[in-house]
Amino acid sequence: MPYQLQPGKMYRMPTHFGPSTGPRQGEDGRKFENKDTPKITTIAVSFLTRPDQLEALLPERFELAREPIVTVAASYITEIEWLAGRGYNTLGVSFPATFRGERDHVTGSFLTVLWENLADPIITVREELGYAKIFCELPEPSVFRGERRLIAAWLGFKFLDVKVQGLRQHSAEEIAALAQAPTGDGVLHYKVMPRTGEWGTADVAYATLTPAARPNRVIRERWAGEGSVQFHKASWEELPTQYNIVNTFYDLEIKEYRGASVTKTVGDKDPSDQRILR
Amino acid sequence: MPYQLQPGKMYRMPTHFGPSTGPRQGEDGRKFENKDTPKITTIAVSFLTRPDQLEALLPERFELAREPIVTVAASYITEIEWLAGRGYNTLGVSFPATFRGERDHVTGSFLTVLWENLADPIITVREELGYAKIFCELPEPSVFRGERRLIAAWLGFKFLDVKVQGLRQHSAEEIAALAQAPTGDGVLHYKVMPRTGEWGTADVAYATLTPAARPNRVIRERWAGEGSVQFHKASWEELPTQYNIVNTFYDLEIKEYRGASVTKTVGDKDPSDQRILR
Amino acid sequence: MPYQLQPGKMYRMPTHFGPSTGPRQGEDGRKFENKDTPKITTIAVSFLTRPDQLEALLPERFELAREPIVTVAASYITEIEWLAGRGYNTLGVSFPATFRGERDHVTGSFLTVLWENLADPIITVREELGYAKIFCELPEPSVFRGERRLIAAWLGFKFLDVKVQGLRQHSAEEIAALAQAPTGDGVLHYKVMPRTGEWGTADVAYATLTPAARPNRVIRERWAGEGSVQFHKASWEELPTQYNIVNTFYDLEIKEYRGASVTKTVGDKDPSDQRILR
Amino acid sequence: MPYQLQPGKMYRMPTHFGPSTGPRQGEDGRKFENKDTPKITTIAVSFLTRPDQLEALLPERFELAREPIVTVAASYITEIEWLAGRGYNTLGVSFPATFRGERDHVTGSFLTVLWENLADPIITVREELGYAKIFCELPEPSVFRGERRLIAAWLGFKFLDVKVQGLRQHSAEEIAALAQAPTGDGVLHYKVMPRTGEWGTADVAYATLTPAARPNRVIRERWAGEGSVQFHKASWEELPTQYNIVNTFYDLEIKEYRGASVTKTVGDKDPSDQRILR
Repeated sequence: MPYQLQPGKMYRMPTHFGPSTGPRQGEDGRKFENKDTPKITTIAVSFLTRPDQLEALLPERFELAREPIVTVAASYITEIEWLAGRGYNTLGVSFPATFRGERDHVTGSFLTVLWENLADPIITVREELGYAKIFCELPEPSVFRGERRLIAAWLGFKFLDVKVQGLRQHSAEEIAALAQAPTGDGVLHYKVMPRTGEWGTADVAYATLTPAARPNRVIRERWAGEGSVQFHKASWEELPTQYNIVNTFYDLEIKEYRGASVTKTVGDKDPSDQRILR
Repeated sequence: MPYQLQPGKMYRMPTHFGPSTGPRQGEDGRKFENKDTPKITTIAVSFLTRPDQLEALLPERFELAREPIVTVAASYITEIEWLAGRGYNTLGVSFPATFRGERDHVTGSFLTVLWENLADPIITVREELGYAKIFCELPEPSVFRGERRLIAAWLGFKFLDVKVQGLRQHSAEEIAALAQAPTGDGVLHYKVMPRTGEWGTADVAYATLTPAARPNRVIRERWAGEGSVQFHKASWEELPTQYNIVNTFYDLEIKEYRGASVTKTVGDKDPSDQRILR
Repeated sequence: MPYQLQPGKMYRMPTHFGPSTGPRQGEDGRKFENKDTPKITTIAVSFLTRPDQLEALLPERFELAREPIVTVAASYITEIEWLAGRGYNTLGVSFPATFRGERDHVTGSFLTVLWENLADPIITVREELGYAKIFCELPEPSVFRGERRLIAAWLGFKFLDVKVQGLRQHSAEEIAALAQAPTGDGVLHYKVMPRTGEWGTADVAYATLTPAARPNRVIRERWAGEGSVQFHKASWEELPTQYNIVNTFYDLEIKEYRGASVTKTVGDKDPSDQRILR
Repeated sequence: MPYQLQPGKMYRMPTHFGPSTGPRQGEDGRKFENKDTPKITTIAVSFLTRPDQLEALLPERFELAREPIVTVAASYITEIEWLAGRGYNTLGVSFPATFRGERDHVTGSFLTVLWENLADPIITVREELGYAKIFCELPEPSVFRGERRLIAAWLGFKFLDVKVQGLRQHSAEEIAALAQAPTGDGVLHYKVMPRTGEWGTADVAYATLTPAARPNRVIRERWAGEGSVQFHKASWEELPTQYNIVNTFYDLEIKEYRGASVTKTVGDKDPSDQRILR
């Protein structure tokens, strides 16, 4: 007897071994509240660039919002519930954008790409949420004489250097003010899944939103300072699956830096509120 | 101005940086013939199990074909064109099955899962072809006093030991006979992509076929011998995204082993002939 | 003109490229004070075993001190000055012992072996200080529902599982009391370097001491709880350079556990006070 | 009762667990003949440089022999007996030199440094034989459209790119001639072990020789072609334990390339004939 997919349960390939476990469905179907964990240290650097360079990265029905400020943010995550307490690291590049659909009209942070150093969250979140996650190596940053350095690489080719220094710690009041500040509607994505055999066509193409609410997220410590970002130009031979992405960032004009930060947080939310934008 | 997807070009997330490169589309859109490369060493062990245990792993419209023989095959691949000459490793578990659809009626090897140790081929082939690829560590096998050993692990938890020994090299005639032997219609998969936000429903669910033809594949050397397979039972804490898969294989009764082999091949084919089964 | 070793400078192989940099000599010969850094999280579990099993691990002129309590301690270290702010991890097994030499009579912690996951500190500290450092994989521990788990592995063979739970945080007073508690004279080692060609003889064989003083070490947080240690028996094929070590620990009788702790510290000392015991 | 070192047995730190296993002593003390294994693929590129730049790298009693030709050779090794059939990779930089001692007068290849990607052979061979082995990452080379590329890196910093192309396969006659060609007396090393506590002094400092005889080594295939070598300049922050080595090679003038080769061999010898030069 072939198996039947159980109604109301989440599945990813392979579907043959019962419901799939992941961030939105644990053992026996339980949810993850993400309270008190995970623990995340995020290093972020922002810079002003040319608006036309960012507009060229927007899918249909998206437009630039506010200033053309790119943020490169690397997060080093531990104590992740759905991984039974393990961690992984991420590196995202985003800028403010608005989605104007037939029904939805939302403004937030458009996440152009999110590198991660573990395949499991890449697969689950690409397919379930529509994040543009791809793989790279993200070793722990170094901290030396007040300077934090991080790198990103793919099979030995380092494509990014980030440095942050001159950090000044925020007071509890500054952190509280920050936690109150409006953050927009959330994080915007464009989910596409190709159709097998009919190359160049898609089975799936829609925008998705990660709503801004993160009720269990608490900022524990935060520092602000100065930083710099250096992407390294790559040939197809050096980065055969990612050279177009890295070279696009390499080509972005850096008109001026707009500050850097290091933020330590705990907690997040049940990541099941992702929705399709129409 | 937002970008437009170029017609006839293949895209994966992120789609914002132009057409995506991968096994079916290189720089400037060229194809990969896979002639003379890649070079692949495959270690395979087969065993007879209970038919009901395999039937429980088959999606709708699939049924067991011939004997319930499971093959565990690990391939160590180098000189891959679409990765500019790099390599990666794979570990698949398959058994013979038939798909009976409205239009298609095909028999081949049902690939229940394919572990790989590099995220890039996992992403592209899950989404474009519908292979049930997931990640694990697959270090080079050891070869010692006539015995080959391979392991597979996920973040330090070793979930598989395979040993092969007593290898006898095939003659050129035996290899030629093998190359002529009927192989069935190809490799069978069941592609599923979940729908964002409507948890428990799928945007995509169809069977796919990798047609058997591999015109550029040449067997260079082959050995036959004896082997064994030992999956290790895992808790959710040990393998939070894969324990259900590994434990299913752990539970398979091994009625008798049906031989082992080591095969060295060069070449493959343009992997664009994958198609949806209906 | 051949080069001359510069007097007063430290050298390791290769000596041909000028003085060697490491923990005791940085660029331009400067020292590392290790104030405020490194940052170390140590997970330790202790157990009572049979005295004869530990006595068998002591070199000449060493004897057991106090109770035969073995401590397995894993340290996860970041912001290391001599590595320009990078980190690495260690795993040590030690018990109390006394060295009675002609001149020196010291009691401390006898460090039987110290695994580390980076070759550079292994090399420099074996050769300069006489620590019995060897290599293994030491991934970040997981933290899940109040339980910390760590593993140690060598090329895919996991040889150790440690679990710690029931942690109760120490008060500032308890930490202060702990910092005042007598710790013995330091850490004891037995340094041996084989003589080339005259196999079975040694160029060097002497005990060394890491004096207990660590003026810049500050305990930031500490928790005490319960823990367990499980070494896994290995064949020569599984651990061809370390099976004898791991199996010795596997064979130790665990009469009773003597508590576990998690300690977060910053700072250490200039590691140049290591000396030979006579 | 403390343990006694068993006479005639080889020991490395830790010495507390019985005789140490390694390339020169296996389980139960047996030797490794290295017949038919290991299997090694070596990629080598040579270039002519300035003699004074090489003389500056020679210890006392060494002098340049023949032309100042540097060879950068990377070996990818599998099926190593003493590692129970596993493998690892190496990268050496050498040039011809003569040692003129009181007793010995030998000419061979002076191995200035040998990077390896596994700590176990680094430790055993530094201490037992006096090779100047240190650690780096050495991923498998890529092979693409007739070009082989290899890299070497340390914690994400790529310090070397080597490319080889235009390869022409040698005939059996050419290989036979090569196997007959005089190779000098062997490989020359300078072994130094620092003395603990008396910083800047050494317990051990002597030259050693790996005699040229490798009775079980068979060249299976060989290709000759053209190649290039590019070391990348490093800051102390980028390579805190190796910047002096890499920068010395970066500074070497490349007057002209002297060819490249790819060589596949099987077998080696019992590596116990290493001896001290006097």
